[in-house]
Amino acid sequence: MTSIRPRPATISDIARRAGVSTATVSYVLNDAPAGARIPEETRARVRAAADDLGYVPHASARSLRTGARDLVLYVHFDVAHGPLASEFLYALARALRDLGYTLMQYGAEKNRGVKAARAWAALRPAAVLAGDDRLTAAGVELLTKAGIRVIGLGSDPARAKGTGLSTLVMDHHAVGLAAGRHLTGRGYRDLAVVLPTDPPLRTMGEGRLAGVREAAAEAGAAVRVHDMDYSPASAAGIVAAWRAEGLPRGVFGYNDEFSGLLLGALLDAGVRVPEEVGLVGADDLMLCEMLRPALTSVRLRSESPEEIARRITEAITEGAEVHLSPWTAHPVPRRT
Amino acid sequence: MTSIRPRPATISDIARRAGVSTATVSYVLNDAPAGARIPEETRARVRAAADDLGYVPHASARSLRTGARDLVLYVHFDVAHGPLASEFLYALARALRDLGYTLMQYGAEKNRGVKAARAWAALRPAAVLAGDDRLTAAGVELLTKAGIRVIGLGSDPARAKGTGLSTLVMDHHAVGLAAGRHLTGRGYRDLAVVLPTDPPLRTMGEGRLAGVREAAAEAGAAVRVHDMDYSPASAAGIVAAWRAEGLPRGVFGYNDEFSGLLLGALLDAGVRVPEEVGLVGADDLMLCEMLRPALTSVRLRSESPEEIARRITEAITEGAEVHLSPWTAHPVPRRT
Repeated sequence: MTSIRPRPATISDIARRAGVSTATVSYVLNDAPAGARIPEETRARVRAAADDLGYVPHASARSLRTGARDLVLYVHFDVAHGPLASEFLYALARALRDLGYTLMQYGAEKNRGVKAARAWAALRPAAVLAGDDRLTAAGVELLTKAGIRVIGLGSDPARAKGTGLSTLVMDHHAVGLAAGRHLTGRGYRDLAVVLPTDPPLRTMGEGRLAGVREAAAEAGAAVRVHDMDYSPASAAGIVAAWRAEGLPRGVFGYNDEFSGLLLGALLDAGVRVPEEVGLVGADDLMLCEMLRPALTSVRLRSESPEEIARRITEAITEGAEVHLSPWTAHPVPRRT
Repeated sequence: MTSIRPRPATISDIARRAGVSTATVSYVLNDAPAGARIPEETRARVRAAADDLGYVPHASARSLRTGARDLVLYVHFDVAHGPLASEFLYALARALRDLGYTLMQYGAEKNRGVKAARAWAALRPAAVLAGDDRLTAAGVELLTKAGIRVIGLGSDPARAKGTGLSTLVMDHHAVGLAAGRHLTGRGYRDLAVVLPTDPPLRTMGEGRLAGVREAAAEAGAAVRVHDMDYSPASAAGIVAAWRAEGLPRGVFGYNDEFSGLLLGALLDAGVRVPEEVGLVGADDLMLCEMLRPALTSVRLRSESPEEIARRITEAITEGAEVHLSPWTAHPVPRRT
């Protein structure tokens, strides 16, 4: 079939085909109480005409009637989603749908601030979930004035309070604290932490580092810090520096993927893991089960997506600020 | 701020605030030729009023005027996107945006067929990109009748031709052929291939297996096939079977992640890789650089996203079927 794109069928088309008024079509298709007075034979004819024409009710038209099916925009353009984020998003999308909202991911704009806010606002969402690095005060103000609630992913709740900006954050301090306590719990007192150089990851890395520092302070351990790119060469460079200056006893590798690169570089350098250097990642990806020795990690468990969805819709319908931090951190010891 | 969600500003609100007619507002904000007759002072007042009120043009309203900003829905609910898919999607989203379309990901519905088609159609996209496992003939017909073009991801172009269904496929046969030729090129004549048990992956796996079989036939090699779940236990079970029945010389592990699990299980069983068993994955993820020995893989290179975006919009505006297979497969030898 190579026909020109057809115009979507309207209730007028259905009325013409079924030989009834548009009001009758509307009553029948909406199961309106007034439709009960319409003979079953007519109702069947209207439904058949709608099916033949491939009629589908317009989501926006329905939303005017029911107040439902509002769009929640999740702004996302990072190269890779971890499975953790993907599972969480799917569950959140389902929970929001059950509350009458449509969560969609939009990732074509790498702008930030007012320019990005204008592009998102033109899509007329009820709410926008966007990374803190994409938000400026002016951008949030533009969206709020347009009746769009903004939920800052990773935005500092303390700074957001009272500004109208809602927040959804992962407690990176708790991730670092769990990793750090795992390492000091093994008796390690000479720790090293890597910090990603990529800006959005770096902010999270700094939160995790603060958690490791707290665990180190509790145990009287020292903490060295190293910048790291997400590349094998960067991992090899850090391991070479360790060999020159003395190996750390325990390493927190920011997450499982950075830790995987560090593990490869340590093994290449002939370092025995965990006998000489212990290593812990974060996210508890399947990757941990592929590496040898299998990688110790920190798992993040989320509270119910239904509850998070309910709080987000509260922000939309009541105009309330919500501040969510639904994850808790748990160490998952493996071989490293 | 905890105000009730404000109503978005309209051009009537702007007209009232600026003390001009709505027609004047419309001319000014749309940079219409007729607006040239309006004094600069008035134009500045209109723009200031629009800014004060946080006015943003409605994307749908604009699309009625310009025919642009149509929604392209990418239906996606798998647990994890590989970085390959994520990079490709970002580039495609950007290219489509430059052509006036908005690519959004929607992942709350795991339905298929007519039920899924109805849910997608209610969002009024210009086109839907959906996995072949979600599409039925009736579902495609419903969408097509509603004026929505359907692009089946992984749909068989030979079967789709003439039905109105466009296709965007990865040539899995070529992936398997590249992997198989790499293994036979090393002189291996006793090959094993794993097939994922999960249905959407299984179809791709079967295409890849056919490619390996072609390479094996060229070289006079034998091919064993094993079902595999994405779990360490399943990988361990396959390796145990190999040890009982005799190790294969070369293994194609479906993709890098399944291969990563197999590598862990092989090393746990004391099998030397690649001295006893050679292993090749597919996708060329960063994971290959984390594993030791580093994993040999098959890289998929895509043609320009701009060209793919242009072909997709051709399907939309001209109602033409398009059949795209933009990836080519290239072996990336590492240590396994």
